[in-house]
Amino acid sequence: MTSELPLQGLLGAEPRVVTVGIGLLDSALRAQAVPTAALDWHPPMPGTAADLARVLADPRRPAANDLALTKITSARARLVDVAPAAEVLGLGSGQFLHAGPPIDWERASGPMRGALMGAMVFEGLADTPEQAAARLAAGGDIDLDPCHHHATVGPMAGVVSPSMWMFVLEDPNTGQRAFCSLNEGLGKVLRYGAYGPEVIDRLRWMSTVLGPSLKTAVRRLDGVDISAILAQMLAMGDEGHNRNRAGSLLLLRELTPALIETATSAEAAAEVVRFIGGNEHFFLNLGMPAAKLAADAARDIPGCTVVVAMARNGTDFGIQVSGTGDTWFTGPAQVPDGLFLGDFGPEDANPDIGDSAITETAGMGGFAMAAAPAIVKFVGGAVHEAIAATESMYAITVGESRLLQVPVLGFRGTPTGIDVTRVVRTGLLPHINTGMAGKVAGTGQVGAGLVNPPAQIFPAALAALAARAAQPPGAQTGPGALG
Amino acid sequence: MTSELPLQGLLGAEPRVVTVGIGLLDSALRAQAVPTAALDWHPPMPGTAADLARVLADPRRPAANDLALTKITSARARLVDVAPAAEVLGLGSGQFLHAGPPIDWERASGPMRGALMGAMVFEGLADTPEQAAARLAAGGDIDLDPCHHHATVGPMAGVVSPSMWMFVLEDPNTGQRAFCSLNEGLGKVLRYGAYGPEVIDRLRWMSTVLGPSLKTAVRRLDGVDISAILAQMLAMGDEGHNRNRAGSLLLLRELTPALIETATSAEAAAEVVRFIGGNEHFFLNLGMPAAKLAADAARDIPGCTVVVAMARNGTDFGIQVSGTGDTWFTGPAQVPDGLFLGDFGPEDANPDIGDSAITETAGMGGFAMAAAPAIVKFVGGAVHEAIAATESMYAITVGESRLLQVPVLGFRGTPTGIDVTRVVRTGLLPHINTGMAGKVAGTGQVGAGLVNPPAQIFPAALAALAARAAQPPGAQTGPGALG
Repeated sequence: MTSELPLQGLLGAEPRVVTVGIGLLDSALRAQAVPTAALDWHPPMPGTAADLARVLADPRRPAANDLALTKITSARARLVDVAPAAEVLGLGSGQFLHAGPPIDWERASGPMRGALMGAMVFEGLADTPEQAAARLAAGGDIDLDPCHHHATVGPMAGVVSPSMWMFVLEDPNTGQRAFCSLNEGLGKVLRYGAYGPEVIDRLRWMSTVLGPSLKTAVRRLDGVDISAILAQMLAMGDEGHNRNRAGSLLLLRELTPALIETATSAEAAAEVVRFIGGNEHFFLNLGMPAAKLAADAARDIPGCTVVVAMARNGTDFGIQVSGTGDTWFTGPAQVPDGLFLGDFGPEDANPDIGDSAITETAGMGGFAMAAAPAIVKFVGGAVHEAIAATESMYAITVGESRLLQVPVLGFRGTPTGIDVTRVVRTGLLPHINTGMAGKVAGTGQVGAGLVNPPAQIFPAALAALAARAAQPPGAQTGPGALG
Repeated sequence: MTSELPLQGLLGAEPRVVTVGIGLLDSALRAQAVPTAALDWHPPMPGTAADLARVLADPRRPAANDLALTKITSARARLVDVAPAAEVLGLGSGQFLHAGPPIDWERASGPMRGALMGAMVFEGLADTPEQAAARLAAGGDIDLDPCHHHATVGPMAGVVSPSMWMFVLEDPNTGQRAFCSLNEGLGKVLRYGAYGPEVIDRLRWMSTVLGPSLKTAVRRLDGVDISAILAQMLAMGDEGHNRNRAGSLLLLRELTPALIETATSAEAAAEVVRFIGGNEHFFLNLGMPAAKLAADAARDIPGCTVVVAMARNGTDFGIQVSGTGDTWFTGPAQVPDGLFLGDFGPEDANPDIGDSAITETAGMGGFAMAAAPAIVKFVGGAVHEAIAATESMYAITVGESRLLQVPVLGFRGTPTGIDVTRVVRTGLLPHINTGMAGKVAGTGQVGAGLVNPPAQIFPAALAALAARAAQPPGAQTGPGALG
C-alpha cells in the first residue's frame, strides 16, 4: 500500500509527490514510475471531531502532557520490602483485590472466578472450590476491589488475598509506593484461573518459605534497584511484559548471595533459588509495579490527555486518564491473537485479562517489542512486525523513555505516554503483548499473543476530557476535579 | 557508493540496470533517474588468480566444505568437569601454554610477557616478576606452547600453567574434548598482561576455592549444556565474544543450586556466586572451548578450504585451514579500533591478542554482532554497522549455523565456516570483536574494539591449498597429508 522507498532516496529528484491516506493514488503514480513518498495517514475515529477540537484547544494540554512525560520518565523503582498483603495493604479476611476495572462475581469471567475460588480455599474461607464459588455468588461478606485502587497491580486475574506476600516497590525520589504479588510460574497457576491442590500448595509454600526468604534477603541488601534491571533487560531481548528472561536472571543475581547468607539452611536456599531460576516470568511482578509507579506519577494533572492505566478484568478493558481522575472508561475485552500451548486453540481462550498492560502504559511490553525480537516465538508474528509495532507506537505517545532504550532502533527511547487525542486522531490502538487464560475456570494458561483495547474507550475518554476542557479556566484545579 | 534501493522494489520496472563494482556508473545512472541495482563486487586479492583457479577446480572442495559445515554446525558442547591443567592437560612444572600461533619470549609482546611473568610467580618459579622475566629470557627449562596444540583456547594472552583450573568441555556425540581456563574478570588480570599481587592472589583463590567449588557443582549436576546456553544468549543480546552477559547469567542459574548444596559453608557459596555474578564475561571461557569443539570437528578434511582456527599471540595473527593440517599462516597482528577505558588511548594498545577469535571461527563474536546491537557501547560503532557486519560475513562463509540464530535477521543462522577462497575472491576480511590489552607488560585491559586479520594470510593459505590441490587424486588421503 505504502512505499518502501526511503524518503532520503527521493530528495535529489524533482518534482516530488507526497501521497497521503489510502494507497490508490500512490499505486497509480508508482505504476507510472513517478517517485512518491506515501504518508500513512488515517482519518480520526468517527464522531470525535468536536471533542478533539475542544481538547486540542485546551491551553493547559501541552504543559500538562509535558509534565506527565517528565513524571513518567523520571520515576524510578526500588524493591524495598516483601511482606504479606494483610500487613502492607491492610486487607482483612474476605477482602480480595482483582485485576482490571471494578467487577462483581456475576459478570466475572472463568479465570477470574477460578482465581477467586482458589484464593478463598487458600485463605481457609472455603473447603472446596465449589463451596468457594457458592459463597462468592452469595456475596455478602466477600469484598472485591480492583488492585489499581490500592496502588497495586496483578498479572492476569490479579487476585490478591490477605495471606499472599507482596513485593513493595518505592520511588526513591518521591517515596511513592506500589505493590504486586509474587509470581507463581506458568501453566496451572492461580492467576490464570487454576485452583487445584497443586496451585494451593504452591501458594502456601510461597507464603511460608518464598516470601519470608525474599523479605530477609531484600532487607539485608537494603533494597534492589529495579529500574536498573529494566534498563539492562531491554538490551538483553526482554520487553518486560511477556519476555522477562534477562530481568529474572538479573534479579536472581542480585538476590542470590543474600538469599544464601540469610537462609535457614542450604536446602532452603537452593529450593528458593531453583524456584526463581525456573520461572522466566518471575521479574514480571517487579516490572509491573515499577510501571505502576511511573504511570501513577502522572495522575491527576488537569488538562492532561495521557493514559495512566490500562487494565482488564477478563470481561472489561478499562483505561484511566490523567486529566479525568479515577474514572474508568471501559469496553469489552478482546480475545488475543497469538500462539497456543499444547492442544489449546482460540476457542479455549478467555478475553484479555490482567493489570499487566500497565507495562505498555509506561512504555514497555508491546511498546518495546523491537527490543525483544525473539518474543515472536511466544506471541506469534514475524520479527519485522515486532519492530514495526514499536515504531508505530511513537505516533500515539507524547514522548520517549529515557530509561528504556531499544538498541536496534539506535538506542531510541521506547514510545511512552499514550495520548488519548493521538489515539483518536490516528485510529491506531495501543499494542499489548499478553498471556491468554483458559476461559473455563480451573484451566490455567492456554497461550500468549497480541491484543488491542476496544476502540470505543478512547472517544469516551476524549469526551470526558472535552467536558472538563469546556469549563472555564480555574475550574479544573480544585480537589474535586482531581478525584 | 552502492544503491540503498531494495532489489525487490525494481522487479516490476523494465529495463533494469545492474551495476557491478565501483560506484561511478551507478551514480551517473541514478543521477539521470535510471533505476539501478548495484552489486557490491570487489576484485580478488592481487596475485591470487592462478591459485584461486586451481583450488576452485579441486573436485573434492564442494563436498569437503559441506562436510566441514555439517561438522561445525552439529558439534555440541557440555561442561563435564573442572580440574587443574596439570591433571587434564598433563602440564608439568615450567610448562606454559599461550594464545595464538607459536612464539618465543624474544618476540612476545608486552601483555604476553606480563602474563607469563605472573604465571611464573603464581607457580612459585620466581619470587618477583622481574626474576620471572630474567628466567623466561634465559629460556632453557621453560617451555612455551600454543594452547591450540593442546585442544585448549585461552582469551587474550591465554597463558595456562599447571596449577590453573580448567573447564573441561565434551561433545556428547563424538567424545571430543576442549579446555579453557576460568575467567578472572576485567581490568587488572593476568590474561591482559597484569601481574601485580592482586592478580596472583586472585589466581590462588581461583585455584583453591573457585575451581574446586565448580568441580563439585558440575559433577553433582552431571554436566551443564553449554550449547543450549549459546543458543539462548544470542536471543538475549550476546554475541559470545565481547558480550557474554546473558550467557554468564544463564550459567550462574544452572550452577547456583548445586554450588549451594555442595559448598563447605554458606559464606563460601555466597563468595563464589558473587564472584561469578560480578563478571559479565565469565561465560566467555565456556563459549570459547565450545567454539573450539565445533572448529576442531572440521579439521583435516582433504580439499576443504574452511578456516578451523584464528588466533593471535599479540605479535602474529595466525590461521589454520582444514585442508592444510596444522600449518599456521601468520602475519602481523593489527591494533584494534574501538573504545578505551579511562585515560587510555590508541597509543596504549597492544596489537590483537588471544585465542578468542575461535568464536568468530565458529560463527559467533563479530559474525553474530547483529544479535548484540548493544555491543556498540563496548566496542564502538553504530548499531546499523553491527548488523551490517554480520550480514557481510555471509559473503565469506560456507553456510549458516543451526544452533546460533539472529532474531533481528528473522532467526537466520549466523554466518559460519570462513572460506579462504571467498575471502580471497571478495577481499572481505573476517570481522573480529576483541578486548585490547595495554602494550606495556603489567598494564591490564585498556579497551575493546574491532579488528581484522592481516589480509596476506589468506592468499598464503590459498597457495598452500593450491599446492595440495595440484597433486594427483588420492595423494591427499594419506595420514601424512593430514598432519
